[in-house]
Amino acid sequence: MKRIAVLTSGGDAPGMNAAIRAVVRKAIAEDMEVFGINRGYAGMVEGDIFQFDSQAVSNVINRGGTFLQSARYPEFATLEGQLKGIEQLKKHGIEGVVVVGGDGSYHGAMRLTEHGFPAVGLPGTIDNDIVGTDYTIGFDTAVTTATEALDKLRDTAYSHGRTFVVEVMGRNAGDIALWSGIAAGADQIIVPEEDYDIKDVVAKVKSGYEKGKKRHIIVLAEGVMSAQEFAAKMKEAGDTSDLRATSLGHVVRGGAPTARDRVLASWMGAHAVELLKEGRGGLAVGIHNEELVESPILGTAEEGALFSLAEDGKIIVNNPHKARLDFADLARDLTTY
Amino acid sequence: MKRIAVLTSGGDAPGMNAAIRAVVRKAIAEDMEVFGINRGYAGMVEGDIFQFDSQAVSNVINRGGTFLQSARYPEFATLEGQLKGIEQLKKHGIEGVVVVGGDGSYHGAMRLTEHGFPAVGLPGTIDNDIVGTDYTIGFDTAVTTATEALDKLRDTAYSHGRTFVVEVMGRNAGDIALWSGIAAGADQIIVPEEDYDIKDVVAKVKSGYEKGKKRHIIVLAEGVMSAQEFAAKMKEAGDTSDLRATSLGHVVRGGAPTARDRVLASWMGAHAVELLKEGRGGLAVGIHNEELVESPILGTAEEGALFSLAEDGKIIVNNPHKARLDFADLARDLTTY
Amino acid sequence: MKRIAVLTSGGDAPGMNAAIRAVVRKAIAEDMEVFGINRGYAGMVEGDIFQFDSQAVSNVINRGGTFLQSARYPEFATLEGQLKGIEQLKKHGIEGVVVVGGDGSYHGAMRLTEHGFPAVGLPGTIDNDIVGTDYTIGFDTAVTTATEALDKLRDTAYSHGRTFVVEVMGRNAGDIALWSGIAAGADQIIVPEEDYDIKDVVAKVKSGYEKGKKRHIIVLAEGVMSAQEFAAKMKEAGDTSDLRATSLGHVVRGGAPTARDRVLASWMGAHAVELLKEGRGGLAVGIHNEELVESPILGTAEEGALFSLAEDGKIIVNNPHKARLDFADLARDLTTY
Amino acid sequence: MKRIAVLTSGGDAPGMNAAIRAVVRKAIAEDMEVFGINRGYAGMVEGDIFQFDSQAVSNVINRGGTFLQSARYPEFATLEGQLKGIEQLKKHGIEGVVVVGGDGSYHGAMRLTEHGFPAVGLPGTIDNDIVGTDYTIGFDTAVTTATEALDKLRDTAYSHGRTFVVEVMGRNAGDIALWSGIAAGADQIIVPEEDYDIKDVVAKVKSGYEKGKKRHIIVLAEGVMSAQEFAAKMKEAGDTSDLRATSLGHVVRGGAPTARDRVLASWMGAHAVELLKEGRGGLAVGIHNEELVESPILGTAEEGALFSLAEDGKIIVNNPHKARLDFADLARDLTTY
Repeated sequence: MKRIAVLTSGGDAPGMNAAIRAVVRKAIAEDMEVFGINRGYAGMVEGDIFQFDSQAVSNVINRGGTFLQSARYPEFATLEGQLKGIEQLKKHGIEGVVVVGGDGSYHGAMRLTEHGFPAVGLPGTIDNDIVGTDYTIGFDTAVTTATEALDKLRDTAYSHGRTFVVEVMGRNAGDIALWSGIAAGADQIIVPEEDYDIKDVVAKVKSGYEKGKKRHIIVLAEGVMSAQEFAAKMKEAGDTSDLRATSLGHVVRGGAPTARDRVLASWMGAHAVELLKEGRGGLAVGIHNEELVESPILGTAEEGALFSLAEDGKIIVNNPHKARLDFADLARDLTTY
Repeated sequence: MKRIAVLTSGGDAPGMNAAIRAVVRKAIAEDMEVFGINRGYAGMVEGDIFQFDSQAVSNVINRGGTFLQSARYPEFATLEGQLKGIEQLKKHGIEGVVVVGGDGSYHGAMRLTEHGFPAVGLPGTIDNDIVGTDYTIGFDTAVTTATEALDKLRDTAYSHGRTFVVEVMGRNAGDIALWSGIAAGADQIIVPEEDYDIKDVVAKVKSGYEKGKKRHIIVLAEGVMSAQEFAAKMKEAGDTSDLRATSLGHVVRGGAPTARDRVLASWMGAHAVELLKEGRGGLAVGIHNEELVESPILGTAEEGALFSLAEDGKIIVNNPHKARLDFADLARDLTTY
Repeated sequence: MKRIAVLTSGGDAPGMNAAIRAVVRKAIAEDMEVFGINRGYAGMVEGDIFQFDSQAVSNVINRGGTFLQSARYPEFATLEGQLKGIEQLKKHGIEGVVVVGGDGSYHGAMRLTEHGFPAVGLPGTIDNDIVGTDYTIGFDTAVTTATEALDKLRDTAYSHGRTFVVEVMGRNAGDIALWSGIAAGADQIIVPEEDYDIKDVVAKVKSGYEKGKKRHIIVLAEGVMSAQEFAAKMKEAGDTSDLRATSLGHVVRGGAPTARDRVLASWMGAHAVELLKEGRGGLAVGIHNEELVESPILGTAEEGALFSLAEDGKIIVNNPHKARLDFADLARDLTTY
Repeated sequence: MKRIAVLTSGGDAPGMNAAIRAVVRKAIAEDMEVFGINRGYAGMVEGDIFQFDSQAVSNVINRGGTFLQSARYPEFATLEGQLKGIEQLKKHGIEGVVVVGGDGSYHGAMRLTEHGFPAVGLPGTIDNDIVGTDYTIGFDTAVTTATEALDKLRDTAYSHGRTFVVEVMGRNAGDIALWSGIAAGADQIIVPEEDYDIKDVVAKVKSGYEKGKKRHIIVLAEGVMSAQEFAAKMKEAGDTSDLRATSLGHVVRGGAPTARDRVLASWMGAHAVELLKEGRGGLAVGIHNEELVESPILGTAEEGALFSLAEDGKIIVNNPHKARLDFADLARDLTTY
């Protein structure tokens, strides 16, 4: 394979630029030509495609977001959309594609591969909720940003003897909440993967203050409910502390990627090119047990595929992502209330 | 004067700890004894008072919030509250007090002085809205934190071609919005000190995208309205961009103080002790034109007092704080739309 | 076991405070009493020991260094030193000890265990060069700090078209250099684990500029030689670029621990208490393949011990730490010259 | 004036990009055409000049260094060099120039003005040592970076009970040392503007430890001598503490500009364009007492000129920059030893 392209799809994540840079640099090191596709599958279909030179990715490794921009583009789920995209790839002589994004992006990669254009997926999302990898690109940065914000909130909570409910992103996964909550010494962490008893939450707040605590921080994963709703429930359940609800919001998506995210993104990005070089597609790259792994995107569970098709055509996730619930236990052990 | 105390009052602000440290260290350098009062005027009335040694303020200069904690305590506006507080001060032989906080805190300082306990105010608030100083302790840090958050939001706004309305703190003042908006290269800045035309706001968004901009950031001071309300108004006025509303929230209050806030707080804190040493009270310390100044808290405008009493007993602010509106013009000149 | 103690030994590392906090909190959660020993083994021998309450470790999770202080104390290698230390432990009724530090610290832990005081080691060092764990406490922070400094140097190198040789810490290991070099997009990374040809180094600098690069950053692990020496060698070998040598120095040891280091430290710290609770000692805790592991400090290779004794009494390291040399290859693939 | 250009000269400083952006954006807002000159006066003479569009300065406000690059170019002191530069300006129809840099750069601006090309200087240097302004562009960032590094060193100094001599940049000025030293709670600050007695320095170190201090940080301005030399002098004078010498080095020059530096740079940059629009040159812009000021670069002291010519042709600096020595006193008052 001599000509490949790279695009970013789905929600943006810090480290996507480091992944793009790795794809570009590695491809050039392998004597391939490499193209950028703007705005994900939408840009592919519209032919918003350009060729990279090696200097084009200088000074991007430390920039947040994705300079190729991203966009949601449900039309790519249709055959028509896919064929239009392929037509554009053919115009530029592109033979393979690296897709950086979430699960949705992987399905597009699978379709391209089935149409004879090997495509490889890289896990790019802050939520860490993608199958086939221990860590996604952007997760470490999101945890870092959330932790820094929680450190700041702890200052002001302490100063006024307040209780804060802090909502953090993560879609349906509690990973960001768990990691940042432990790192910031949060007093309670509420995640969608675990039940909670609102009476118990309120009792811990009360008991904490009685034992001399000067503030109480509750980290709440967005997958549970909003901070406002949770605070309202606490009030209902009898909380009498000076309670505030706040959301870290979109800030957690941005920012210069951490060193770790840059390294993981570089490592996986380079590997994606190696796979394409061998003509292999329909694969998603990940990091498992400190080593690079690649998994078939679609296939049987026995083959190690991330997704299988049920008889009724529905997609089965073979090993759904699970947040580490041992961390929820750890967090409880490290708090006093 | 041989025994003084220090307290923090009102909303917490980064740099308050640096101010406390300066008061403690300077007092010890001047052979005075120095006490800390926890939780502001509430702690004074309750006698929550302890003596400092010089090592007690090691490693606090870089901590956010106030380790003395703060609290709102409207009861101190009553004579009864004041007398109770004074009784506690007498118990410890305290002869003068440094109060770090906002305008409200200054009034308590005035009362103490009138009762024979010279008190000096230091401007501690993130909002920069205190009379008698060019800069308040905490403002530079709040601007820095807001700017860092806006930098992060710009990443994600760019990645998705989005418009963000970002609400920042500042009570009724636009200072944080103006400084952070300019620093982050915001496209529009809306502050309470200036009228705006929502149709013009929307037209600039549209025109910006037409001229090739990839995102649009509107910084909104909380004194105008909430981000959600503003975004709703934009939609009503015809905005068709991919619009998101977010608030930076309480995060802006916290965090390690910037180097500048630490220096200003140290400088003003040491000066407050010098004033008390000379037996002077009823004064507020500030920085004006790069030099220390002190102003009578209450008196006539001719005396340079910050506040005067009208015949009907109401308080007149002699030179109300004004945000720099030349910065609003500057911001407009530096944006393209 | 009802009474344990914790100390930090060897070079300080960010995250040590998070580890101490975890030991204290977990012990209290397990209804144990927990003591702090100041200044490592020196403090143990001198009886510089105090009891913790649970609030004592509030607000330390995000502080760099070790609040228990550390000290080198070669005397603890002698039986006399050990017995003196044990005498002090007995005075307080302490039955087990957690030691956070480097390899040297582990040997002390082994001796204590042999004398009937179970001791558990936690890997605390920025250098990542401890056997028995994939990551040491402090490594992620050191990589982060080095990367941030390299990002800054890149700015100034670019502005003046300069070549920088930047020395980073790491003792005999190249891990910090490799990770931070990849993360910062360094042009060359020189580590002790790999040979280099100074002529090749100089040729790459030259070729980079010829291909349009605006600056050249060489990250040099301290285990190779000093930046000044390396730059001198480059000059000798014919480098004609505008060359500067600089060392990041001790700054890399300090700073608030990253979220990741806080999580790893918390996780390992809590596990050390679980081991002591079961009366187990002579073990070092680590993270391997994303799970907690514990290894005998001394024993046979078959038992998975970190160290064995040779017949002549010398210590054999069973699986010496190795930096990832695949990262050195990766770095080369991602650079253009 | 309809066509202007901007260049950066001398040592790079964070905030230069914000200044360039302001010049470009303001010029476009004023319907002028605006050009960039790469590599300072060297690029001018070589004709390395290009036209900006308004999007060209998107996303540069937060980048360190100068994307126009800088270079020393002593040849511009000669008439020949100046005429060559002017020839290039004429080729592009450029009528005025904004020069961001240090004192040396101002002289070039004066020459251009004398030759009929109005040029305006902006104070761009981390050292704060330029006449005609209270603050230079880059100073606040350098203080911030130095303070963050000192905070980190304090961690490790505390952990081991060490004394650190930390050299910070500043050429012949002590400003960075004074501000960062106060901000970081340094124990002693040694600047070129003040004499010191090495025996007194050593006595303070000793006395500090005797009073219970756990570490001792000495901030040393590079204008005094190197950290190694100073530490050697301390040893000679009898210091027996665990002493380390380190230099923050070039790191202090780089990094994203602080919010304050971005605001000051934007404000001054826009003003430079206003001056050129009125056809005014030979001026340097500054901030004095929180307001914009402009001063003649060359003239008489009575005119407020920054520099005058003596009869023998030598340049007289009319009001040489002075670091605030009241800050040196402040620092002493805030330390215990």
